[in-house]
Amino acid sequence: MRGTMIYGPGDVRSETIPDPVIVDPTDAIIETSATCVCGSDLWYYRGDNEVDKPWAIGHEYVGIVREVGSAVTTVKPGQFVIGSFFASDNTCPHCLYGYQSGCEQAEPVTGCQSEAIRIPLADGTLVAAPDTPADDMLPDLLTLSDVMGTGWYAARAAGVMPGHTAVVVGDGAVGLSAVLAAKEQGADRIIVLSRHADRQAVATEFGATDIVAERGEEAVARVRELTGGIGADSIAECVGTDEAMRTALGVARQGGGVGFVGLPHGVKLSAGKLFNTHVRIQGGGAPVRDYLPDLIARVYDGDFHPGKVFDLKLPLADVAEGYRAMDERRAIKAFLTP
Amino acid sequence: MRGTMIYGPGDVRSETIPDPVIVDPTDAIIETSATCVCGSDLWYYRGDNEVDKPWAIGHEYVGIVREVGSAVTTVKPGQFVIGSFFASDNTCPHCLYGYQSGCEQAEPVTGCQSEAIRIPLADGTLVAAPDTPADDMLPDLLTLSDVMGTGWYAARAAGVMPGHTAVVVGDGAVGLSAVLAAKEQGADRIIVLSRHADRQAVATEFGATDIVAERGEEAVARVRELTGGIGADSIAECVGTDEAMRTALGVARQGGGVGFVGLPHGVKLSAGKLFNTHVRIQGGGAPVRDYLPDLIARVYDGDFHPGKVFDLKLPLADVAEGYRAMDERRAIKAFLTP
Repeated sequence: MRGTMIYGPGDVRSETIPDPVIVDPTDAIIETSATCVCGSDLWYYRGDNEVDKPWAIGHEYVGIVREVGSAVTTVKPGQFVIGSFFASDNTCPHCLYGYQSGCEQAEPVTGCQSEAIRIPLADGTLVAAPDTPADDMLPDLLTLSDVMGTGWYAARAAGVMPGHTAVVVGDGAVGLSAVLAAKEQGADRIIVLSRHADRQAVATEFGATDIVAERGEEAVARVRELTGGIGADSIAECVGTDEAMRTALGVARQGGGVGFVGLPHGVKLSAGKLFNTHVRIQGGGAPVRDYLPDLIARVYDGDFHPGKVFDLKLPLADVAEGYRAMDERRAIKAFLTP
Repeated sequence: MRGTMIYGPGDVRSETIPDPVIVDPTDAIIETSATCVCGSDLWYYRGDNEVDKPWAIGHEYVGIVREVGSAVTTVKPGQFVIGSFFASDNTCPHCLYGYQSGCEQAEPVTGCQSEAIRIPLADGTLVAAPDTPADDMLPDLLTLSDVMGTGWYAARAAGVMPGHTAVVVGDGAVGLSAVLAAKEQGADRIIVLSRHADRQAVATEFGATDIVAERGEEAVARVRELTGGIGADSIAECVGTDEAMRTALGVARQGGGVGFVGLPHGVKLSAGKLFNTHVRIQGGGAPVRDYLPDLIARVYDGDFHPGKVFDLKLPLADVAEGYRAMDERRAIKAFLTP
């Protein structure tokens, strides 16, 4: 089948790789309806994370179940499913507490930029949609596999509540999803840090009320000015760098919350500063599985379109162009169909 | 009048100092009914915080209003009042958000181990009790000025909810107060880290269900064992050292919460570890003022006795013995009356 291998920085290839097979009785094999390129894939593509040997990349997916292992009971061949980028059993104490990404058996799903995918722990990882959706619903549903779920968690971890002034640091697809999440979770005012016109446009469509083009200390000063010197109630940090975290902490009001979902790269935290500002922080890989039933229902309700983050649609064979376009910021996020 | 001056490490003296006077029209002067020695006073007494010149120490107090400035409207001479160790206006956006300790005008109250005290921002800082209480209520009410309010905030910041398994790191008066707070806030199981029989006894009286005498990594292992390998829902870190924070983070379950109220001394935080564990943290100086009305009502209801943290009662003139006894861990907390 056609799959996507990463060989090293800047070197992603669409090639023929072995078809996945059931390894454990809890596995399912799905035929990919759509997949995409994630900002975190770019950490490897740009050489920020090491590629020690070639591997089948991609972790976002929707598709039709082809085959299930003997222990799988909740999904069956022919069903259209959406799953988390982290496989989880959904039965351990951590899953039941709402942290499936901290599941005792958690393992990353990988090899998803392919025509078919092996999903471990299928019962705990996949959620069947009400039906097989029309093609125009695929972008919205595909985002739930990671980027929209991650934005949702960022807003939850930030503690967004109705009436809040929220700030989103980062205008990548996750940041934009966090804007939409903050809106759905009731924020009144949503300030997004963005200096790219295409991203600003999506942010505005998603509910952003203010755009701040400044960065670093100037961005902090601007947000403070916009909030009457008080600072924001809830902040989604969707980048993962030290500058982004400093900005997020800097714009928080006394007792505000910061949710951080970008994998930390060189982020430093000061206990003393947190103490002095009473800022509450929570981060981590999003427990996407926990949100899937709710988010799928929102998409089916027809008025929730997180798929607008996809501004480049390509055949799977052209995956390398998807990486290039995102790396060069010609595209926010590339949508791929086999 | 009689007051208490700290001259340097180990050198606290009861001596005659000037009577306080109204400086700003928002001030009040109170006659001290009771005051006490705080664990944070010991940072100076032990030389961990510098004493660059002699100053009038003490920040916990209850008393009778003697005089108010021309702008004070909510308390009046003759009333018995309790106030926070941090003065606040209680009208700025931070106060209205419940973070009076982050008030735009916040300033520490000091000189409280004295026969009379100047309280800045009296309207925003002091709360009048329903009446002038009997002497046997003074210990309970005095704790609300700092230690019980701080324990209350530790539990709130940790996110204690009904049914939780809570852990308290630190068996000083704040830690013990956090045990009582966790109990009042609905925790089912309360594990306290303590290796002193007298403190264990108070903790048990306050609602602790399990005592862990181990420290550091051994304490983490023991708490993990007690929680079936899962970890605790909510943790109050009431010490302020790096070891205490590592212990608190180490016993938290995926998605658990840590509230930290000990002023951080050398505490290091890892963004990566927080990310991997989904642990939520919040710290700071407690917004005691926010809790005073509720906590005063609990004391007056008759079944809430945070004053049990006082195991040494001395005349104010013997304040130096109070410091010595606490420093040598012969006493948990020293109660002083003029």
